Amino acid sequence: MTQKRPHVVVLGGGFGGLQAVRGLSRANVQITLIDRMNHHVFQPLLYQVASCALNPADIASPIRRILRKQENVSVLLAAATHVDTKSKKVFLDATPDASSPEGIDGLCCEVTYDYLVVATGATHSYFGHGDWEEHAKGLKSIDDALAIRRWVLLAYEIAEREEDEAARRAWLTFVIVGGGPTGVELAGALREIAHHVLRKDFRRIDPSTARVILIEAGPRLLAAFAPDLSKSAAMKLHALGVDVRLETAVTAIDAARVRTGDTAIPARTVLWAAGVAASPLARSLGAPLDRAGRVKVEPDLSVPGSPEVFAIGDVAALEQDGALVPGVAPAAVQGGALAAENIARRIRGVETLPFRYRDKGMLATIGRAAAVAQFGKVHLRGFVAWIAWLFIHILLLIGFRNRLLVLIEWAWEYFTYDRGPRLITGPTKPSIAGPQSTGRAPSHSPSSSASLTT
Amino acid sequence: MTQKRPHVVVLGGGFGGLQAVRGLSRANVQITLIDRMNHHVFQPLLYQVASCALNPADIASPIRRILRKQENVSVLLAAATHVDTKSKKVFLDATPDASSPEGIDGLCCEVTYDYLVVATGATHSYFGHGDWEEHAKGLKSIDDALAIRRWVLLAYEIAEREEDEAARRAWLTFVIVGGGPTGVELAGALREIAHHVLRKDFRRIDPSTARVILIEAGPRLLAAFAPDLSKSAAMKLHALGVDVRLETAVTAIDAARVRTGDTAIPARTVLWAAGVAASPLARSLGAPLDRAGRVKVEPDLSVPGSPEVFAIGDVAALEQDGALVPGVAPAAVQGGALAAENIARRIRGVETLPFRYRDKGMLATIGRAAAVAQFGKVHLRGFVAWIAWLFIHILLLIGFRNRLLVLIEWAWEYFTYDRGPRLITGPTKPSIAGPQSTGRAPSHSPSSSASLTT
Repeated sequence: MTQKRPHVVVLGGGFGGLQAVRGLSRANVQITLIDRMNHHVFQPLLYQVASCALNPADIASPIRRILRKQENVSVLLAAATHVDTKSKKVFLDATPDASSPEGIDGLCCEVTYDYLVVATGATHSYFGHGDWEEHAKGLKSIDDALAIRRWVLLAYEIAEREEDEAARRAWLTFVIVGGGPTGVELAGALREIAHHVLRKDFRRIDPSTARVILIEAGPRLLAAFAPDLSKSAAMKLHALGVDVRLETAVTAIDAARVRTGDTAIPARTVLWAAGVAASPLARSLGAPLDRAGRVKVEPDLSVPGSPEVFAIGDVAALEQDGALVPGVAPAAVQGGALAAENIARRIRGVETLPFRYRDKGMLATIGRAAAVAQFGKVHLRGFVAWIAWLFIHILLLIGFRNRLLVLIEWAWEYFTYDRGPRLITGPTKPSIAGPQSTGRAPSHSPSSSASLTT
Repeated sequence: MTQKRPHVVVLGGGFGGLQAVRGLSRANVQITLIDRMNHHVFQPLLYQVASCALNPADIASPIRRILRKQENVSVLLAAATHVDTKSKKVFLDATPDASSPEGIDGLCCEVTYDYLVVATGATHSYFGHGDWEEHAKGLKSIDDALAIRRWVLLAYEIAEREEDEAARRAWLTFVIVGGGPTGVELAGALREIAHHVLRKDFRRIDPSTARVILIEAGPRLLAAFAPDLSKSAAMKLHALGVDVRLETAVTAIDAARVRTGDTAIPARTVLWAAGVAASPLARSLGAPLDRAGRVKVEPDLSVPGSPEVFAIGDVAALEQDGALVPGVAPAAVQGGALAAENIARRIRGVETLPFRYRDKGMLATIGRAAAVAQFGKVHLRGFVAWIAWLFIHILLLIGFRNRLLVLIEWAWEYFTYDRGPRLITGPTKPSIAGPQSTGRAPSHSPSSSASLTT
């Protein structure tokens, strides 16, 4: 218990925050990692929980366990509400979402830092249409994934007992808004559930007739990838039976339909993979933000005007070679490592280093045994890309135990066309979509990423 | 599509209901299985989900998948609210708990049967103290297990940041009410979590100092077992550090403490493993009930006055050799088989057979590598009993896939003292304990059982 060690507070236990903590493992500092949730989520596989392929525990690991052996870190389960950079304090919600059994009085309502790493990630953005959130679930957390699983499975159950043909069609129509990696992956997975997993399970409906519609406002899917891979992805989705609609903007979403201009699509299940905004905590840093609410950081990732505060991952905006560093896990991990390094340098009184994002490539799966991958000039597609995707994701999954279980799950599902975790659990749609998820904006969601290599 | 096939309605997809459906697989009938949940739960292992050892999908399987190949059965996700034996109708809640996205109008509100099997199981009973439910969670469903997991993990998180010593002790005190198999298994598991799983994860608290108190009103634990095994169980729990209090009746439970007579135990987490009552649907059958609300069935398991209605498992009461048939899974399975047989006999116009429960033995685990088992006059304890428990449960788990994954999970946890599914997910305590679980009484919970062999 050395006194006077600098206190480093890290907000967010996603890819960036964890890397920042690890980068300081040998530094003579005391670290406090604060997250709303007790677990780190391997976000690139979140869609597999949503589509009944994996268990939550397969892709999430308790943060305390991950950091168990690093003695200079304490973990605190709490939601940070705002930062006061003048007094160097982080204010915490004493009754955060994840820890509100009645009777907790305002404990640990503020934490003072010497250095701060803001790694609170991104949240859904409905482009000013907050009312859409109730009807169009986004995918950022384990709870989101379980809610999507529940919505999708319930839609088939309700269709099975629905007498009216038009109403039944609406329950068997799944609309995904947004053609980035998450949208593409969800669309492929939903068609596979319809076509393979549920096919023999119902008596009155034929699940394989379910429609999956992927709506993208831009001219192509996977806009971050090269055009030839966008085309591959669209062709593969088309072959799976996904109705891909490009250059189509959603104009309204309610409980019964999605509108795109003059077209109304009767659909009971709408998933949101379109907009992302930085965690609202960024606003309290008193620094300039870009349109998505991200902090425009200095080249060394520090927050303008607050050299002891660093912002990394999806909550930070930095240009490199004329383009924004993408909001993917490798950028968050690299940012976390540099933030740790720069804090250590500042403590030693040495000049900080500028951030330089190294692109490790991008991957997206499109259903069973198909994917696209882009490693610099190497473009892969189909089975080869899928094998690359599989091994990279298995290797990156935290914890050997998870890797083994996930491999077995995938092998089982590959050969049997079956999916184990098809359970409808938890609260029902209204309470999920209602006060619980709309009331509070997430303040610490882990760094977002749909494509990933490290 | 033969017309005029008798319509058999089975309420509840637990051990009894599933067995009744299977028993009719070759009968010339049309079957409708109705359950509130989309999955069958392997209840004897539910405490392992509650104690972070297994994933929900490891012990639960979609009912549709289980019955996929049996063509004469349709599965309906709905909550039965009551039965009218005169008009032979089952009334369904059109917006049941598990399927209430807004906008479902009163569909399929009634189902007419020729034969009915009531296998709706049991629910918690708080002995007239309904207000205790909010503070003392019972364990009957996957959602219950996840809520207990959340409560237990959150208690440690809150203790870690609690400054006041007395308040911290209350968060680190876990009280289990009821010394039957579920109570004994939970108590052992909670001590193990404290002693092994979480030990190195916290910085300010020492989880191994957590108190686990098991309260039993009767003179011994595991009253259904032989006295020597009760004694073994108590000794083993004592060795694990569980504070076992026999002949102690709980007189009050609130958010902060449990009272037993003049003693107040400050405790923030209370689990309820004491009272069980038959599903409230039983009341609508117009037949005599016993004190726990079970239907006093005829020797052939039919409901008095309604020869075409059968009640099985935890919803039925039948004496045999001067004692009630116990509320365990094997009794439900055997009852389901006989109900199917007797329906087939009634269709053929043959006399029905009386029920004869064959005791296959009982098992209960007491933490790591210890258990008690009673097979007739053979009493096993310690490691041998645990090995018996392990293999019997692995064999009985539905689906090869689950067996393999559970074996790997257990092997991993056995050798590493680690537990994977330690995630805090889902709604917070107030909403779980509040309107959601107190508002509606479960009408279809699968057959309850803490000890099991088939």
